[in-house]
Amino acid sequence: MALPRYAIGLDVGGTKIAAGVTDAHGEVIAKITPRPCPASEQDAVLTAVLDVIEELRDPYGTAGGVGAIGVGAAGLVDWPQGRIRTAPNSGYRDVPLRALLQDATGLPTVVDNDANTACWAEYRLGHRAPYMAFLTVGTGVGGGVVLADRLFRGSSGIGTEIGHMVVDPYGSQRCGCGTVGCLEALASGTALGRYGGAAAALDPGGTLATLAGGASHVTGETVSAAALQGDPTALAQLERLGHWLGIGIATLVNLFDLQLIVLGGGAAQAGDPLLKPVRASFEHFVTARAHRELPDIVPARLATDAGWMGAALLALEAQGG
Amino acid sequence: MALPRYAIGLDVGGTKIAAGVTDAHGEVIAKITPRPCPASEQDAVLTAVLDVIEELRDPYGTAGGVGAIGVGAAGLVDWPQGRIRTAPNSGYRDVPLRALLQDATGLPTVVDNDANTACWAEYRLGHRAPYMAFLTVGTGVGGGVVLADRLFRGSSGIGTEIGHMVVDPYGSQRCGCGTVGCLEALASGTALGRYGGAAAALDPGGTLATLAGGASHVTGETVSAAALQGDPTALAQLERLGHWLGIGIATLVNLFDLQLIVLGGGAAQAGDPLLKPVRASFEHFVTARAHRELPDIVPARLATDAGWMGAALLALEAQGG
Repeated sequence: MALPRYAIGLDVGGTKIAAGVTDAHGEVIAKITPRPCPASEQDAVLTAVLDVIEELRDPYGTAGGVGAIGVGAAGLVDWPQGRIRTAPNSGYRDVPLRALLQDATGLPTVVDNDANTACWAEYRLGHRAPYMAFLTVGTGVGGGVVLADRLFRGSSGIGTEIGHMVVDPYGSQRCGCGTVGCLEALASGTALGRYGGAAAALDPGGTLATLAGGASHVTGETVSAAALQGDPTALAQLERLGHWLGIGIATLVNLFDLQLIVLGGGAAQAGDPLLKPVRASFEHFVTARAHRELPDIVPARLATDAGWMGAALLALEAQGG
Repeated sequence: MALPRYAIGLDVGGTKIAAGVTDAHGEVIAKITPRPCPASEQDAVLTAVLDVIEELRDPYGTAGGVGAIGVGAAGLVDWPQGRIRTAPNSGYRDVPLRALLQDATGLPTVVDNDANTACWAEYRLGHRAPYMAFLTVGTGVGGGVVLADRLFRGSSGIGTEIGHMVVDPYGSQRCGCGTVGCLEALASGTALGRYGGAAAALDPGGTLATLAGGASHVTGETVSAAALQGDPTALAQLERLGHWLGIGIATLVNLFDLQLIVLGGGAAQAGDPLLKPVRASFEHFVTARAHRELPDIVPARLATDAGWMGAALLALEAQGG
């Protein structure tokens, strides 16, 4: 059988589905406008995913065309089985998504964690190093790690839960996973919005509250927007976020001995007002900093397409493409 | 050339040198009584190491005998270069130990971090799993990680600095590395002695102070000994130590997706009074614990010989043995 030329990639998150078709070089052949993902019904999610696949497959499904499917899914995903053990913000559990999609489409399929697939897209098409970590800072904090030029998955596929490194176990912030002190509870876009909302409540006439239409409406995006305008209150919140991210990155580098850190996700688009405190905190907390080459910490090159593109690339590679 | 039958292994720590001769199956052919290691003079350390090698090589140096040298050394060690970048409690820096030993002995040599070599001995001869971590809890907290049945070293050899995971960045305890909040500052045998000393100062007539001959003399060993006698104050300090170790292990498992955790080093010999709180804390802090198989946390099978034996095994494996 000839190697497939194209793969469909899907990024199935807690709230939306992004998808497209790419070749092995990352050339985008087609993509859909991201659409809402049914949040909690397993059957509804599967139907929505199959709808997207059919839509993208039809025009490119001729011989030599789409020959594989890759899915990046939020949650703990067994590799290579492609079974979703549990997913945040959803009601489904133990979904053998890979098997379900293969049965329904007849196409070879891979299913991996969405941060893993985004990491792989960045490695393949954006910034790369043989040993690197990719962190996505959005609603939560996710990530992937490349070791010796291969995506690292641990013993079962559920490793690199970067957002759940325990960085403040005696703090007061509970993570969505139920534990106190996870990195995600302190360094996500959600946390940034919380920091901004608290600051705005103390300054109801300030830039943050004004931009958001009230302190209670401040989100991570509001803080990033206000920071772009030079608002010192917003900049202080990015500094706080960066401080925690730097702590998490220090532990990652202490453990994995990495050459490069790539920051993606919405919050990372704040640029230097976030990256500078991240770097300062990292350099403060990494051990033996005088005796190591410090890895660069850079913003991701790929934006919101990374999740589905990485999944498609993994699907093609699994077919030898 | 025939494969070497035996290798000399050395464990060169901050304060002592342990060494012996083993074959590829871990049979101990000879070993020395551990002797003090010159703490800060690079030339003196090298002389002491060469003395040990000559002593062990002579009786077993005949054809088919000792054909390789392995060293586990405290500090950051480049792999495979075997250059010691920096070592705790020592004055030497940038020592190309592997090259120096090969030149002086004519034997092929490997030099790795001492916790890595102890981890490898445990994997080869003690408890093992394809994905496992070994933590040694003594003066500091060191460790190694096995991934897919191979010792993981990161991009340059200085990974798995488990003792320097940042677990309490807003705490008050400074680590020997200069950073606040490292696991080692809170979960080493040294920390255990500090906890015990503070408790003993509040209870000068208690078991801890009595055993040690005064609160200021309490060490981690005192606490473990008092705990063996059932002293509730000592047991509480082991619980505190175990709490922090469990937090560090939770982060390790969240990141590396491990199947087994082995605890070695002096403090780990306390047994269940330490292991129970370690397990409880780990289960509390690991993310998504209801959706994963929890790895066993077990005491090391190998004791103080692990460091030199693992180094010798690595040396034999590097020669194809």
